[in-house]
Amino acid sequence: MDVADEGMLRKFQKELNSGTVSLILLAILDRSTEPLYGYQIAKSIEGNWQEGAPVKQGTLYPVLRSMEESGLLGSRVEPSVSGPPRKYYTITDRGRAVLTDWMSAWSQTRDFVDATLEGRNHA
Amino acid sequence: MDVADEGMLRKFQKELNSGTVSLILLAILDRSTEPLYGYQIAKSIEGNWQEGAPVKQGTLYPVLRSMEESGLLGSRVEPSVSGPPRKYYTITDRGRAVLTDWMSAWSQTRDFVDATLEGRNHA
Repeated sequence: MDVADEGMLRKFQKELNSGTVSLILLAILDRSTEPLYGYQIAKSIEGNWQEGAPVKQGTLYPVLRSMEESGLLGSRVEPSVSGPPRKYYTITDRGRAVLTDWMSAWSQTRDFVDATLEGRNHA
Repeated sequence: MDVADEGMLRKFQKELNSGTVSLILLAILDRSTEPLYGYQIAKSIEGNWQEGAPVKQGTLYPVLRSMEESGLLGSRVEPSVSGPPRKYYTITDRGRAVLTDWMSAWSQTRDFVDATLEGRNHA
């Protein structure tokens, strides 16, 4: 892959991530039985994803903050014995409602893209 | 759905589309046996997609222009008997190379999001 094409791929991946990262964060916090801080969320995303997640840890923090400002997440800061205080996030009722909407928007867009790539909706 | 949640959903859909529209345009032009102008591409996207495509026709034109500037598409303007001249687009060799890269980035991201939503990669 030449350098210019690599740049185009990075831009494309970034665009794909701009929507999907928020969706993933809501889903992880919805499923968690306890509040999670950034590093735990990053580890949960990586999980046993062998090939390396397409989402970098550093990109999560501004998204978490923005989702809290939008009322989708709540947070609580707690001291840590091993370093600076940690900000623990939980999903709000509004976050749960939005997650439901976004999951169906995601399914529809995913199926739409796959159908177009496979030529099934070619007129 | 309340008004604020509708606004969040529109923003989310717009973010999802920001990557996927370029991918869809490349795929349609790659598959086409002849140059296509904007309206034909829009029709091809809608195809027999019953529920209404998540992509609006007006959003395609700036993306087509930007992809031409990046060398992924070529174009030729031709007069039309029924209105203003039409700009016909074709995919370039570079566009084909980029399409291959983007299709695998799409598959990886799609599988990653689906796995996260289903909790398969939860640590």
